[in-house]
Amino acid sequence: MDTRDAHLKIRERKPLIHHMTNVVVTNLTANLTLAIGALPVMAYDKEEVEEIVDRADVLLLNIGTITREQLDSMLLAAKRARADGKKIILDPVGCGASALRKEAADRIMAVGTDVVKGNFAEICTLVGKSAEMKGVESEEGKTEVAIEAAETLSKRSSCTIAVTGREDVVSNGVGTSRVVGGSEMLKHITGSGCMATTAIACFLAVEEPFYAAMHGLELMKRCSEDLTYDGPASFQQAFLDRVFSFPDTRARA
Amino acid sequence: MDTRDAHLKIRERKPLIHHMTNVVVTNLTANLTLAIGALPVMAYDKEEVEEIVDRADVLLLNIGTITREQLDSMLLAAKRARADGKKIILDPVGCGASALRKEAADRIMAVGTDVVKGNFAEICTLVGKSAEMKGVESEEGKTEVAIEAAETLSKRSSCTIAVTGREDVVSNGVGTSRVVGGSEMLKHITGSGCMATTAIACFLAVEEPFYAAMHGLELMKRCSEDLTYDGPASFQQAFLDRVFSFPDTRARA
Amino acid sequence: MDTRDAHLKIRERKPLIHHMTNVVVTNLTANLTLAIGALPVMAYDKEEVEEIVDRADVLLLNIGTITREQLDSMLLAAKRARADGKKIILDPVGCGASALRKEAADRIMAVGTDVVKGNFAEICTLVGKSAEMKGVESEEGKTEVAIEAAETLSKRSSCTIAVTGREDVVSNGVGTSRVVGGSEMLKHITGSGCMATTAIACFLAVEEPFYAAMHGLELMKRCSEDLTYDGPASFQQAFLDRVFSFPDTRARA
Repeated sequence: MDTRDAHLKIRERKPLIHHMTNVVVTNLTANLTLAIGALPVMAYDKEEVEEIVDRADVLLLNIGTITREQLDSMLLAAKRARADGKKIILDPVGCGASALRKEAADRIMAVGTDVVKGNFAEICTLVGKSAEMKGVESEEGKTEVAIEAAETLSKRSSCTIAVTGREDVVSNGVGTSRVVGGSEMLKHITGSGCMATTAIACFLAVEEPFYAAMHGLELMKRCSEDLTYDGPASFQQAFLDRVFSFPDTRARA
Repeated sequence: MDTRDAHLKIRERKPLIHHMTNVVVTNLTANLTLAIGALPVMAYDKEEVEEIVDRADVLLLNIGTITREQLDSMLLAAKRARADGKKIILDPVGCGASALRKEAADRIMAVGTDVVKGNFAEICTLVGKSAEMKGVESEEGKTEVAIEAAETLSKRSSCTIAVTGREDVVSNGVGTSRVVGGSEMLKHITGSGCMATTAIACFLAVEEPFYAAMHGLELMKRCSEDLTYDGPASFQQAFLDRVFSFPDTRARA
Repeated sequence: MDTRDAHLKIRERKPLIHHMTNVVVTNLTANLTLAIGALPVMAYDKEEVEEIVDRADVLLLNIGTITREQLDSMLLAAKRARADGKKIILDPVGCGASALRKEAADRIMAVGTDVVKGNFAEICTLVGKSAEMKGVESEEGKTEVAIEAAETLSKRSSCTIAVTGREDVVSNGVGTSRVVGGSEMLKHITGSGCMATTAIACFLAVEEPFYAAMHGLELMKRCSEDLTYDGPASFQQAFLDRVFSFPDTRARA
């Protein structure tokens, strides 16, 4: 199944993606989910997350503005998703920036994840390598180190690891691939990494983790290229519009 | 008073709309409130919501990403609004998706609401009918069932019920009307239902609930038609721009 | 150092701006930070804010949708920033609207701030003058009163005070200046005041508070002028695009 076929399958099935994500990107990732052809639901309270997981197809956990209370909810949701056989994707945003975030990423991975998608510094932190870090938006991975880190972490955690950067890297511990291209403008809008996680989550509803990661990242790269814009805000708008009409056979409702 | 006259009255009075809403649509509904000509204020903490209600003209409660703590705050705010004679509108987002959301909708309605605005599945849930549900964004009401549900719930709760769908339905238990038209693109952006609630809330500041619901929904439909766009993101922008210049007599400041 | 030189220094240093801000403007102010050339990080939990402050260059506190819990976190963060010698900017959004917000502003100022940026009503509230208030978005300062209030509050609190309005006023208790111009459309989008605070925060990383306030407000005014738009949503987009390419010598990455 190539990116296009997988994408058409998303549009046909309209999977429900349960996001527990950060307050910076909530609206943006909900709109990206819709543009891809899936359905978003955001739910956080510990009283309801298990019920929402039961209805959802995929659980996305993003620790970008996590609180202790939300971590407790995320762990409940993750355990339920595991018990239900639902796929889980983790975005360990800024996990090198605080003990709380590192604990969150480690404990969620201990429950079990299907894909972990991070930038260079985040994946290095999870592997235990020190990486120069300055904020959440500033990373550019060096591909060789990213490949080594992805393979190491993939084998250790038995899940697919995706590392975004100038070249994206995906490894499931057996095979490793790269996704190249994409617009430099993605780094000038907040949440482009979080959007990649959402894109992968949508594909996780219709295919295996390694391919979902490849296709989600491929979607981000392709839809960011050759756009017309005057700056980051019009770039973001053009990007979302492009996703909506991608692949070109989308039947408009 | 037709939509245009009511709208001009909003622009003249600039009512303050206290939103307690979900994290997906906070920015969007604040901007819609301004585009209509009213003023938004968002406030959540139980220590301050009663003071904010005192200053506001209308209280909008949207349970889209509710937490137990926010429910407690919403109930305090609703009781204060009742005591003050301020109008209340409830959007029971996803009330069929969890026990917490159903409890939230029921308890808020028990305090008393002037308008409840939901999609087909949400209103069916409140009436006690089962409705096929898949996520929060996926519903399309069937008009006949929507009318029956709206009339039943309206009589039972003594408030105006608005059901959004291909045709919107509004009932106050005595009369029932439909609002037709509007763009199919509204379903491709997150928060279009939440925006309808905000639109109704603005009209609630200047007229009775049944007419406020009709005019708010009319505004959504009319301003979504005949726009120029390339996809959902540029559609949303064009929609907000249109609202700002609607009705056409708006005096730009 | 003029606005342009200070701006180029931001682009060169890429300072990290720790935002603890309201849920209405989180995405918008993160994107503004990036457009200016700095890096945003949002973090709220009391367990992690001190670590994030340690990594950041400037701490921005905005009480727009504050909760008691977030106030506790903000106070921890502010104390750490003081101890670290990091600059702090406060936006006392709606501090006249509730006792909680007034308490928040007072307690944060008691820890110590480098800049307090508010609208006319907010600064009047902090000075102890009564000001006619209707919501958070509705204020227009009267310049003479704003100057008096800014000077009084600046001397009392030993920090720079910036008052936004038709004419912006900045005082450090010794000197007072005005920033004029700017588009009337800024008042038709939510968060334009919060964006001014973010702009000042970015300049605070490279220069003294009085100049940072002047240059941040100057950036807001200049980038809002002579834009092409059809309404508030396209205005906001054009504004962010303009900031990204301002000053004109920006080397695109």
